Amino acid sequence: MPTTFSDQRKLSVVLFEGFELLDVFGPVQLFGSLPDVAIEYVGPHTGPVISSKGARVVADLAYEDLARPDILMVPGGQGTRTLVDDAGFLAWLGQAGSRADLVASVCTGSALLAAAGLLEGYSATSNKRAFTWASGFGDDVDWRPRARWVHDRDRWTSSGVAAGMDMATGMIADLYDADTARAVTLRAEYEPHTDSTRDPFADVYRLG
Amino acid sequence: MPTTFSDQRKLSVVLFEGFELLDVFGPVQLFGSLPDVAIEYVGPHTGPVISSKGARVVADLAYEDLARPDILMVPGGQGTRTLVDDAGFLAWLGQAGSRADLVASVCTGSALLAAAGLLEGYSATSNKRAFTWASGFGDDVDWRPRARWVHDRDRWTSSGVAAGMDMATGMIADLYDADTARAVTLRAEYEPHTDSTRDPFADVYRLG
Repeated sequence: MPTTFSDQRKLSVVLFEGFELLDVFGPVQLFGSLPDVAIEYVGPHTGPVISSKGARVVADLAYEDLARPDILMVPGGQGTRTLVDDAGFLAWLGQAGSRADLVASVCTGSALLAAAGLLEGYSATSNKRAFTWASGFGDDVDWRPRARWVHDRDRWTSSGVAAGMDMATGMIADLYDADTARAVTLRAEYEPHTDSTRDPFADVYRLG
Repeated sequence: MPTTFSDQRKLSVVLFEGFELLDVFGPVQLFGSLPDVAIEYVGPHTGPVISSKGARVVADLAYEDLARPDILMVPGGQGTRTLVDDAGFLAWLGQAGSRADLVASVCTGSALLAAAGLLEGYSATSNKRAFTWASGFGDDVDWRPRARWVHDRDRWTSSGVAAGMDMATGMIADLYDADTARAVTLRAEYEPHTDSTRDPFADVYRLG
C-alpha cells in the first residue's frame, strides 16, 4: 500500500558500546521489510558505536536528540553490565521510554528497562543464561523465567538474542496482522516460533 | 581455551551498498562467539557502508587492502542486482575468493560468487524468492533449488537471509565439532535447522 511520511511508524533502536548485534539486526531485518516503518539508530553520540562482537554501527542521532519515539527498542549485550550503574543513561532511558508508544527489549536489554524504572508493575523476561542477574533489577517486576517473550500492554521483552526475531514477529502480528507477519518472515526465509510460552532454553539453563 | 593472534582464523565479511543486514549479522553472531575467530569488514572504501535496510556499518578496510582471507563471506541484498554487472568488483571478488581457504555466501551473495567465476564446477544454492535470477549466473554451476544450504568442498552457499544462521552452524560443526556448534547456538538462544536438505521455502516459492 502507498505510504507517505506522515503515515510512518518510527522504530528507534538504542545503541551503546557493547550492544549485541543480532539483538538489533534480527528484529530490524523483519521491521525493515514493512514499507511504513522508518528505523533510526540512537547512540551516546552520532557516528560509529562498537558492538560486543566488534562491528561498528553508525548512530544517526545522539540520545539527547531523540524526539518522541513510536517504538523504542533496547538490545542486550556485554555493555548492559556497566550501563545498569550509569545514572545519566538510565535517567535518559526512563524519560525516552515513558514518552514512547511501545518499549521493547531483547535479551539483557530488559535489565536496562527495569533499572530505568520502565518495567514497574509489568511482567517481563530476559536472557536465560543471564536471568538471575537481569531479574535482580526493578522493584515490582513480575519476571517470567519461562517465556520466549512477554507482551504486557505497552512493554515487550524477549529472551536471549535470537528470541528477538520471534518477539518482533509477534509485535508485527499485533501491530498489523498475522498475514503481514507471515509475509515478512517468508521474505527473510525465517520460521518463527509463534508460541511466546514455549522456551526450551529455560530447561537448558534450569529455570522455572 | 587460550588463543594467540597466530592461532586466529580470520572471517572477512564483504560489505557493499545495499547488503542485507541479517545475511551478515546472523552468521557473525555465531562465529563471533568463537574466541579464536577474528572478524573484519571489507568494503568499497573504509568507513560506513549503507545496508538495504538503511543501517550503516563501518568497513575496516577497502577491497584492495584485503590480505589472504581464511573465510570470505559474501551477503546478498538489493546491492547484488547492480554488482553482478560490475566488472571491477567481480574481478576483485574472483581473486579474493580464489585465495581464500573457504568462500561462503548467504542469500543472493551466491549470484555474486557465480558471476565472479567462484562456483564453476560446484553445487550451490541461493535465496528461493530470487532463485531464478540468481541461478542464471555461472557457466557450470549445479544450482540446487531445494536446500537450506549447500556445502561443496571449499564453497558454502545458503538460501535466503535467515538460512545463513543455519549454514554458519553447519560450518562451525564442520570446522570445529558438533559440541562447539551447539555451544554457540545455545548462547544465542537459537534453535538451528541442522538438515541442509530441509527447505520449506522451496515449496513456498514452488521450486524443485
